[in-house]
Amino acid sequence: MKTSDFALWNGYMTACLSDGSHDRDHVYRVLYNALDVASFERGVDMDVLVCACLLHDVGRPEQFADPALDHAQVGAEKAERFLLENGFSEDFARRVSSAIRTHRFRRASPPESLEAKILFDADKLDACGVMGIARTFLYKGGVGDPIYTLDGEGVPSDGTDGTKISFFQEYKFKLEKLYDRFFTARGRELALERRQAAEDFYRALLEESRRPYLAGRKILETLLKED
Amino acid sequence: MKTSDFALWNGYMTACLSDGSHDRDHVYRVLYNALDVASFERGVDMDVLVCACLLHDVGRPEQFADPALDHAQVGAEKAERFLLENGFSEDFARRVSSAIRTHRFRRASPPESLEAKILFDADKLDACGVMGIARTFLYKGGVGDPIYTLDGEGVPSDGTDGTKISFFQEYKFKLEKLYDRFFTARGRELALERRQAAEDFYRALLEESRRPYLAGRKILETLLKED
Repeated sequence: MKTSDFALWNGYMTACLSDGSHDRDHVYRVLYNALDVASFERGVDMDVLVCACLLHDVGRPEQFADPALDHAQVGAEKAERFLLENGFSEDFARRVSSAIRTHRFRRASPPESLEAKILFDADKLDACGVMGIARTFLYKGGVGDPIYTLDGEGVPSDGTDGTKISFFQEYKFKLEKLYDRFFTARGRELALERRQAAEDFYRALLEESRRPYLAGRKILETLLKED
Repeated sequence: MKTSDFALWNGYMTACLSDGSHDRDHVYRVLYNALDVASFERGVDMDVLVCACLLHDVGRPEQFADPALDHAQVGAEKAERFLLENGFSEDFARRVSSAIRTHRFRRASPPESLEAKILFDADKLDACGVMGIARTFLYKGGVGDPIYTLDGEGVPSDGTDGTKISFFQEYKFKLEKLYDRFFTARGRELALERRQAAEDFYRALLEESRRPYLAGRKILETLLKED
C-alpha cells in the first residue's frame, strides 16, 4: 500500500468528520477492527478495505444536517467521485464505493464483496459492547435525547414499549439486536466477547434509574397529602 | 407541605432547565434520593429540603452560557430572590439558598445544615454508579469531548495522566473519587451499592477502546512498509 495513497484518504476523511460518536477515533477503531478480521480471511484486497474503512462515514455531515439523507448512499457517491478525481481506477473507485454503500444496518442492501462484509462487521463491532453504549450516549447528548421516559406508572420504562425516543429504547430496539448480524466468524467472535458487559450496564442503569422513583415517590405523595 | 407551594417551585425549576445531564429527570432523582436519605434522619425540615432539591440547579443555564460562573452561587441567589418575591419568609428563603450554595463538590464550602447535607448527598449519588457515567457521556456529547485521548504510544490513555479532557480523565479525576465524600450514612450506603457497576464499566470500556489499536496498528504499519 502506498503511504501517499493512505495519507490522501486519511486527509479526506478528516475533512468530512461530523459528530462525536462518528469522530476520527471511531474511524480508526473500525479500520483496526477490520484489519484484525481480515487477518483471519483469505484473498482480501487490502487497499480496497483500508480505503473503504477510512471513507465509510464521509457522508455523515450530510445526514447530520438532513436526517432524511442516507449517509451510506451519500458517502458512497462522495468517495467514488473523490477517488476518480484523484486518479484511482474506475474499478477501484467502484469497489470502495460499493462497500461504503452497504455498510449500514439495512436488510435491503447487504454487503456482497469480502471487503464490504469486513467493513460492515468492523463498523457494527464498534456499536457492540460498552463502546456502543458510550457512543450512543455521546450521540444522544448531542441531540438532547433522554436516558429514559416514564411509563404509565410514572416509573422509568425499560425501553421495550418503544413508543418514545430514549437510551433504553435504542438499547432494546437496536444495540441489543446487533450480535446476530455478523458476516465473518472473527467479527462475530469479537462481538460476543463484548455482549455481557453491555447487558450488565443496561440492567444496572435501569435499576439505578428506577430505584429513586420507587423509594421517593410515595414519600412525596404522603408529604403532599398533609396539605 | 402545601401542594400549591410544590407546584410553584416545580414550575420555576422547569423554567430553568439547561442541558440533558441536568434535566427534569435528574432533579426528580435528586429529590427522591433526598427523601430516601431523609427517612433515615431526624429533625429534617421537609419544606426546606424539597424546595432546595427542586431548585438546586436553577443556576445551570448561566454556568452553561459562561463556565466562569458557579451555578451553585448563581442558583442560590436566584432561588432566594424567587422565594422572597413569592411571599416566603426571609428565614425560609435563606435556608433554601444556603443549601443550594453548598451543594457543589467544593471543599471550601461544605454543607452545614442537615437539609444542605442531604441535598449534597442526593445530588452526588446521581453522579455515582452507571448513572453518573451515563450523565457524563450525555454532557460530553453535548460539548464535543472525546471518550479517550491517545498516550505517547498511540494507544488510548486510561485517563490517569490527566492532561487532556476525555471521559476517562473525568472518571479517574472526578467520578471515581465521589464515594468517600458523603455526609449521611444512608447516602454513603446507596453510593457504595453502585460502585462496582461503575468500575466494571470503566474497565470494560478501556479494554474495548485499546483492543482495536493493539490488534490493528501493527498490521497497518506492515502494510505501509510494503510501499
